[in-house]
Amino acid sequence: MNKIPTINDSYTHQNRCISKLSNILRSELLSPELSFIMEAHDGLSAAIAQRAGFKSLWASGLSISTSLGYRDTNEASWTEIVDVVERIVYSSSLPVLVDADGGFGNFNNARLCATKLLQRGAAGICIEDKTFPKTNSFIGNKHELADIKEFSGRLQAVKDSVGNDLVVVARTEALIAGHPMEEALARAHAYADAGVDAVLIHSRLPRADEIVDFLNLWDSRLPVIIVPTKYYMTPTQTYRDANVSAVIWANHSMRAAASHMTKICKSIAANQSIAQIENDISSLDEIFSLLNYDQLKEDEKFYFPKS
Amino acid sequence: MNKIPTINDSYTHQNRCISKLSNILRSELLSPELSFIMEAHDGLSAAIAQRAGFKSLWASGLSISTSLGYRDTNEASWTEIVDVVERIVYSSSLPVLVDADGGFGNFNNARLCATKLLQRGAAGICIEDKTFPKTNSFIGNKHELADIKEFSGRLQAVKDSVGNDLVVVARTEALIAGHPMEEALARAHAYADAGVDAVLIHSRLPRADEIVDFLNLWDSRLPVIIVPTKYYMTPTQTYRDANVSAVIWANHSMRAAASHMTKICKSIAANQSIAQIENDISSLDEIFSLLNYDQLKEDEKFYFPKS
Amino acid sequence: MNKIPTINDSYTHQNRCISKLSNILRSELLSPELSFIMEAHDGLSAAIAQRAGFKSLWASGLSISTSLGYRDTNEASWTEIVDVVERIVYSSSLPVLVDADGGFGNFNNARLCATKLLQRGAAGICIEDKTFPKTNSFIGNKHELADIKEFSGRLQAVKDSVGNDLVVVARTEALIAGHPMEEALARAHAYADAGVDAVLIHSRLPRADEIVDFLNLWDSRLPVIIVPTKYYMTPTQTYRDANVSAVIWANHSMRAAASHMTKICKSIAANQSIAQIENDISSLDEIFSLLNYDQLKEDEKFYFPKS
Amino acid sequence: MNKIPTINDSYTHQNRCISKLSNILRSELLSPELSFIMEAHDGLSAAIAQRAGFKSLWASGLSISTSLGYRDTNEASWTEIVDVVERIVYSSSLPVLVDADGGFGNFNNARLCATKLLQRGAAGICIEDKTFPKTNSFIGNKHELADIKEFSGRLQAVKDSVGNDLVVVARTEALIAGHPMEEALARAHAYADAGVDAVLIHSRLPRADEIVDFLNLWDSRLPVIIVPTKYYMTPTQTYRDANVSAVIWANHSMRAAASHMTKICKSIAANQSIAQIENDISSLDEIFSLLNYDQLKEDEKFYFPKS
Repeated sequence: MNKIPTINDSYTHQNRCISKLSNILRSELLSPELSFIMEAHDGLSAAIAQRAGFKSLWASGLSISTSLGYRDTNEASWTEIVDVVERIVYSSSLPVLVDADGGFGNFNNARLCATKLLQRGAAGICIEDKTFPKTNSFIGNKHELADIKEFSGRLQAVKDSVGNDLVVVARTEALIAGHPMEEALARAHAYADAGVDAVLIHSRLPRADEIVDFLNLWDSRLPVIIVPTKYYMTPTQTYRDANVSAVIWANHSMRAAASHMTKICKSIAANQSIAQIENDISSLDEIFSLLNYDQLKEDEKFYFPKS
Repeated sequence: MNKIPTINDSYTHQNRCISKLSNILRSELLSPELSFIMEAHDGLSAAIAQRAGFKSLWASGLSISTSLGYRDTNEASWTEIVDVVERIVYSSSLPVLVDADGGFGNFNNARLCATKLLQRGAAGICIEDKTFPKTNSFIGNKHELADIKEFSGRLQAVKDSVGNDLVVVARTEALIAGHPMEEALARAHAYADAGVDAVLIHSRLPRADEIVDFLNLWDSRLPVIIVPTKYYMTPTQTYRDANVSAVIWANHSMRAAASHMTKICKSIAANQSIAQIENDISSLDEIFSLLNYDQLKEDEKFYFPKS
Repeated sequence: MNKIPTINDSYTHQNRCISKLSNILRSELLSPELSFIMEAHDGLSAAIAQRAGFKSLWASGLSISTSLGYRDTNEASWTEIVDVVERIVYSSSLPVLVDADGGFGNFNNARLCATKLLQRGAAGICIEDKTFPKTNSFIGNKHELADIKEFSGRLQAVKDSVGNDLVVVARTEALIAGHPMEEALARAHAYADAGVDAVLIHSRLPRADEIVDFLNLWDSRLPVIIVPTKYYMTPTQTYRDANVSAVIWANHSMRAAASHMTKICKSIAANQSIAQIENDISSLDEIFSLLNYDQLKEDEKFYFPKS
Repeated sequence: MNKIPTINDSYTHQNRCISKLSNILRSELLSPELSFIMEAHDGLSAAIAQRAGFKSLWASGLSISTSLGYRDTNEASWTEIVDVVERIVYSSSLPVLVDADGGFGNFNNARLCATKLLQRGAAGICIEDKTFPKTNSFIGNKHELADIKEFSGRLQAVKDSVGNDLVVVARTEALIAGHPMEEALARAHAYADAGVDAVLIHSRLPRADEIVDFLNLWDSRLPVIIVPTKYYMTPTQTYRDANVSAVIWANHSMRAAASHMTKICKSIAANQSIAQIENDISSLDEIFSLLNYDQLKEDEKFYFPKS
């Protein structure tokens, strides 16, 4: 059974095991098993993903922005993102890989962000080869990529700042930007040379073909992470066969929340009543259980003597 | 049809219409029509409630705390709550009534919070007669109430600081704390004397009887707001007959999000795939539409000339 | 005598007079009198500048960054800057012109920042024609300037978002970047065409000659603001003769704080005692007076009845 | 000579040496040598104190509040304080003992705050036996003390949450609140029983007599920290003779900043010029040196290749 952490466990985790969280994430990426990383965008979604059995989380830029009511074009400031990551780590005690877009500026901004994420308990940072401000990968065409040398310097600066305390993932948007496979590979190799721990290859085609091609040509130099948001129909066995290291389910908790909040809001508005939806939403007791209210009651007996 | 605000409308709203938002909320409360106020806890839930047709929002302490991964016992700081309220106002352009617990301390803390909420665009503040830190109304028994005079001073300090720019609602927890109806009425009248705009009477019985009793005895001195989380089966006509001014659906978007995120996370974990849930969640296009990505594209053409 | 605002005055100011603050700043810039704008970087420096008689403040990017321990190269996030501005406005009740660097990204980032500054009570925003991340004007050479058309779009987007509720100032770094006077003038005129309220012309020469040249050629199309950090020896009459509208003393409170904190720290470290410096620093009573502790005591009597 | 940390050293410190910082602070308190802890209230004051040779810092509640423009009566939220502490740690790389007032609520608020401070790199937390919201020790009389059992529970909860990763200091305000020496001693012993690492005994008399009495009767059970703000004339040898462990210079950097900013602002206002004060404030080069701008230039050469 999946052990449910108490808040005190969570305290312990945060305080003493910062490097342990990055070690766990690194081990997951290096293991021959295919790993699955679930999106979270706030404390609640993180707690839910942890209870559902996921072993690591993706702090998605798109989902966090959306949750804040910002568009995914670097409207949210980098410290706003960092503050949300703190809540995700706190609520799950899981290794969290953070989608840090392009690092929010140049090499200096990127390493500043990385060190602050480390401080807040993140296990990894993923940086993509874009300029600032970014455009969401699913919006528009021909996104401008960062210069390969400049971006490699960004990655190296991050790596030099956080060492092995944070897993550093380089994400290339080369395929999405319309470049050929050679460009994607050249970039991935340059980023590997810069010292990153893993590579994320992104695609928005409805089939995984170009991803599989990449993996074949890549030849396992470093672990490869994928994000099958658009090629979601692909059987998972395909990823195993292609030696994918980890799959990120990148925005599905946020989209789940959006769809059901929409349905419930419409029903309440139409019926001017909540009677009809009470059984279609989590109970208050489920919410209280998720956040360990019982533990607080226990602690109160122990630490809070009434005169 | 429900007009969908663009981000530019939103800008206009925030910048120029702060007092207008409180006027709208005040008019709603004073009108003979029963109003419905929908819970929101972040930018996304606020945008969704606005699209579903709600005219005003409840920034719920329980829901915001839960979303942040905090327990609803004043674990979140008052400025963390204020920051979330800013996102709710920004994403909806609706009047937002903020659940400010007991005001986060004494009269001085309460008025500081009120003025900061006003600055962030809130339309109203609701303060309950509890001491700091609070306990959630649905947890435990015999919650300690604030001294009636001290709490009246708290309300008056808030009122003197924000004037009519913010709707001030006094919430009494007398019935939930196990006090008789006389105590609830005495408190409500004292708070009315302190100058508040409306009263919120809370109950956690499964039926609305004590609420209806209160309303009969109250005799419409000020608008009354209710929160039928526990007596959800009560027909809405009962509230109209009892002269309720507004009903708050206090935590149902958060609980909707929690239930569906749980279902989707479990399904993904069990199937190691997202193929089976793609049609059970919002599409990316729906998300992009909700946050006006199209408007940004238009604006880009206008403001961002490519050399 | 300079009236000292109470915290309650401050509340009133913040809540009701947002547009009034920008009107005051605009009037200052448009008046034939030369205005002086004093730097502030936190609540304390703002309160002190207000007590010293200044009528408006400059929320300096360099000073705020330094106070936070960041370098002035966009290390601080834009929301961290905004949070500091809130404290400056709160503590002074004065019109605050905010140094917003280049707007922290493209036209969309710039207008987001502008609307948030407006919400926090700023009276004006100053945006410079730099790319992101910026370099401090006094560091290095040949800073890259923003494309003139792109930057004009940035200004226009800001202006369209905040209208007259915020004074919009365009700052050109053309001279500092080593461009000739023609470039500085061309840029200033383009920015005026974009609808800004005033122009800031920056120079880091030890004499004001190029500033005076600019003003002669500019011919009073719009108010001109200057920052004589480097040409500090210039007599103020020179600025009056040249039709300067406002002078910003851009970082002198921060540098005053730094010098005296350095002296006092060294003295305490050397003497292992505070006896020798007690008369060389502000008394606690002066601090308490600055932040209206007496008013709080009065308010306590009124709002906080002891049982 | 005092080694000046580069930003990269600082990164290393923050990332890897969290427990090391608390170990350093603990060793200082346990050593037979008298230690001196200098106040800091922002990044700049922290960097300056570090350069002046201090080995540890006091993140003063009064000074931080004042810097933010808040009064020292828990107007600043606990997360606002935490955010400032982050800047102090970042800018100095020194062990920072944080003045956390009474812990900002009950045992649960106190431990939450402690774990967040630990995360931001603090080395110690000092909690005083007051109720929330607090009054500054130098304002008013007969402050209400927390119940001794309740406060001991608060301390124990903090200790159980942070273990030895944070030095926990219990501060008693018994003498300031007008209680006799027996009460102060009884409280100090109860707090020692709760497991704290050190005791802070506060006094606001102009002479150190009651402090010395306390130390004699205390008999070195745990290290004792003092704050001679009011008895500043006392020779430091008195503290050595009395077996004081550490002296906090609690607000002198903030008061130094205030006095010189006042003087400089008045001079600029009176003269409408900065010519006369240029030599009386830190130069820009001193500021740039303090925050390692040169290191950034070096890093730029290495990490930021120009095409």
